[in-house]
Amino acid sequence: MGKIVLQSVLLNDTISDIVIDGNRFSEIVPSEQRKQYDNAELIDCSGLAILPAFYNAHTHAAMTLVRGYADDTPLFEWLNDYIWPFEAKLTAKDIEIGSRLAVLEMIKSGTVFFSDMYWHREATMKVVEEMGIRAAIGVTISDVLTSPKDLEDNFTFLKQHKGESERVKLVVMPHAIYTNTDECFKRSIAIAKEEKYVLHTHLSETSKEVNDCFLQYKCTPVELMEKWGALSSHFVAAHCVHFTEKDKKLFSQVGAVAVVNPCSNLKLGSGIPNIVSLLKNNIMVALGTDGASSNNNLDMREEMKMAGLLTKANDASVIVSKNDILKLATENGAKAYGIQNAGRIEEGWLADCILIRMDNERMVPCHDIVSNWIYGADSRAIDSVMCNGKFVMRNGHVDGEDDIVAEAVACVKRLM
Amino acid sequence: MGKIVLQSVLLNDTISDIVIDGNRFSEIVPSEQRKQYDNAELIDCSGLAILPAFYNAHTHAAMTLVRGYADDTPLFEWLNDYIWPFEAKLTAKDIEIGSRLAVLEMIKSGTVFFSDMYWHREATMKVVEEMGIRAAIGVTISDVLTSPKDLEDNFTFLKQHKGESERVKLVVMPHAIYTNTDECFKRSIAIAKEEKYVLHTHLSETSKEVNDCFLQYKCTPVELMEKWGALSSHFVAAHCVHFTEKDKKLFSQVGAVAVVNPCSNLKLGSGIPNIVSLLKNNIMVALGTDGASSNNNLDMREEMKMAGLLTKANDASVIVSKNDILKLATENGAKAYGIQNAGRIEEGWLADCILIRMDNERMVPCHDIVSNWIYGADSRAIDSVMCNGKFVMRNGHVDGEDDIVAEAVACVKRLM
Repeated sequence: MGKIVLQSVLLNDTISDIVIDGNRFSEIVPSEQRKQYDNAELIDCSGLAILPAFYNAHTHAAMTLVRGYADDTPLFEWLNDYIWPFEAKLTAKDIEIGSRLAVLEMIKSGTVFFSDMYWHREATMKVVEEMGIRAAIGVTISDVLTSPKDLEDNFTFLKQHKGESERVKLVVMPHAIYTNTDECFKRSIAIAKEEKYVLHTHLSETSKEVNDCFLQYKCTPVELMEKWGALSSHFVAAHCVHFTEKDKKLFSQVGAVAVVNPCSNLKLGSGIPNIVSLLKNNIMVALGTDGASSNNNLDMREEMKMAGLLTKANDASVIVSKNDILKLATENGAKAYGIQNAGRIEEGWLADCILIRMDNERMVPCHDIVSNWIYGADSRAIDSVMCNGKFVMRNGHVDGEDDIVAEAVACVKRLM
Repeated sequence: MGKIVLQSVLLNDTISDIVIDGNRFSEIVPSEQRKQYDNAELIDCSGLAILPAFYNAHTHAAMTLVRGYADDTPLFEWLNDYIWPFEAKLTAKDIEIGSRLAVLEMIKSGTVFFSDMYWHREATMKVVEEMGIRAAIGVTISDVLTSPKDLEDNFTFLKQHKGESERVKLVVMPHAIYTNTDECFKRSIAIAKEEKYVLHTHLSETSKEVNDCFLQYKCTPVELMEKWGALSSHFVAAHCVHFTEKDKKLFSQVGAVAVVNPCSNLKLGSGIPNIVSLLKNNIMVALGTDGASSNNNLDMREEMKMAGLLTKANDASVIVSKNDILKLATENGAKAYGIQNAGRIEEGWLADCILIRMDNERMVPCHDIVSNWIYGADSRAIDSVMCNGKFVMRNGHVDGEDDIVAEAVACVKRLM
């Protein structure tokens, strides 16, 4: 495969030529010092800026199918009368269709990786392979929600490392402490260690979860994880809304990752994750959208703005800078799931990026490109998206997008 | 002028034909019962849904020129070292250019009206007239910030009702209690009453403002307004972050309007406006983006999502529904400034609307169109925007948009 050269693209403050060799950025030079490459595809990027693509560290992709379904219904009724009965009907094919809609939406909004906790994982893996992005696919563990047979299948699947590839990783995902028996959660921890998987779970999302944990175990969910030996730099927790000071110290000591999902936490009335305090405790923080059912989109730019604004709400001093916020949504999400050298535009790093139209009215004027991108723009400013050295969106177009949308519409019509 | 018929457009749950006669929706019938109209322009809207356009109840349009300028700088330093010196350089021509960029951005994100508090108002009025939308243009009063001559000119301007038209209203806008002497603020109140203008001011935005008011006047800013006789249904206050229970009662009693600007309040560390409590007190609440310098865009859809999420943060029960939130961003903003019968798609109401692409991946599936629009979509879903019976954006295109962007880029380059 020949090289690709992005010519005359704005990188930070310099008009640059960026060479992509295979799946990496191999050389970055100012366009003034343009070099010649044999057999390279030259792409004129005048008027475009390059920025890192997004890594969505927690979602449930196929829940695009329940976007806006029974919104404004109280939580228990919402789950019990709407979401769970709907999910019970979903076949592997439905989940493939919902995942494809999710991946389309992610690409359109600049995301090239997602961590997915859902069911019928092979349907989602197939979509990720086809559509050219990356994912950490959860083998979702819950002996409360699944049959003994399915549970054993999950552990076998993990033993066999089924379907892992250059762009697809598996992750052990015990759903939560309240949807697993102690034995099953501990078995998840054990297999993650043995087979060197990342362990991902919902943790300290609601005050109810924390209170119930106290009643049952006389400690916080984080303390329980510590007691069970789960905490390490391969432990990635979603939500982390109700962390105590001790919880934060436990996370910080071992390099465990906190994935915050502010839109979802607000929407479900779970509270506001304290991003400033997590960062002050030197915890590695990444960003996720959660599922489209509680957001109701998968737009990491919007999530990034929300996270940034919430760090300032009562004190606009520069505690968390715009560059810190961008990092949560890019590099940190990749690192959380063991994807090395991803989320920056640097030589030797993975060729994942977005190209932004600098003539989009919300990128103008450009006193600061990162500030404009986080707080000013929206997905309309994205011209192209690249993952692993290949374009997954070009000039605003994703292959097959009309069919993906039509198929999702038909699927939901059939299910309702 | 002949009629326009939007054929086969989705309105609520019905495919409808909507007739526009002059500047109003004159007839709405199900497309199944299609009628024939002589001399009418028929527009096929298959695949599009119609929703009310936005009314932005508080902004400073030309501050698009300082979008993202010195973000993350502490507030006082930001104003003193960056924003104020920059603003001091702005000529009427610069403000025309900045306003044009703002109006372009508003139209692209579905807004057809804004309430503007800034300087060189005639430049902004010119842009509004040209670009076809509506505005309540502030005659901004501050004897602390302006010269005695300019101040007198302002009052003369108001006496003459200069430049008022079908789409442009004037509003008396004393900037704030801390940028006016008592005498000057009272004079603003008096002229608003005499000449039947709406009175708009920044009020109870920061705790510093409230504390300083207590020190000087032994009461809250709202109580001061009451004492000075400013409160009425023609009083529209921006921000309202730090309202006491008594403040809310005072507003509620007279039908004064509270315009919340949650993104800006968070970004500047002013706190979080308590929308739930304002609504529970039966206060008329509208929504604004504030200027692009503290947001950093003018996107009412994003502001609406932020407002909606903040009403749920600690309790997801249905206190404020999605339809309530949509109303804050549409009908209430119009009503606040005395624009009657605007912000709904109903016979006899002003023909202001947006057409949304239902095949946009974030409008799919469509369990609930309002929920998708508030919480799922972004401006990419907007196909067309109509104001006063005329298209101001058609198929994503606004006349002259490339020139507007290029002019803004050149202007800021010159100013820096």
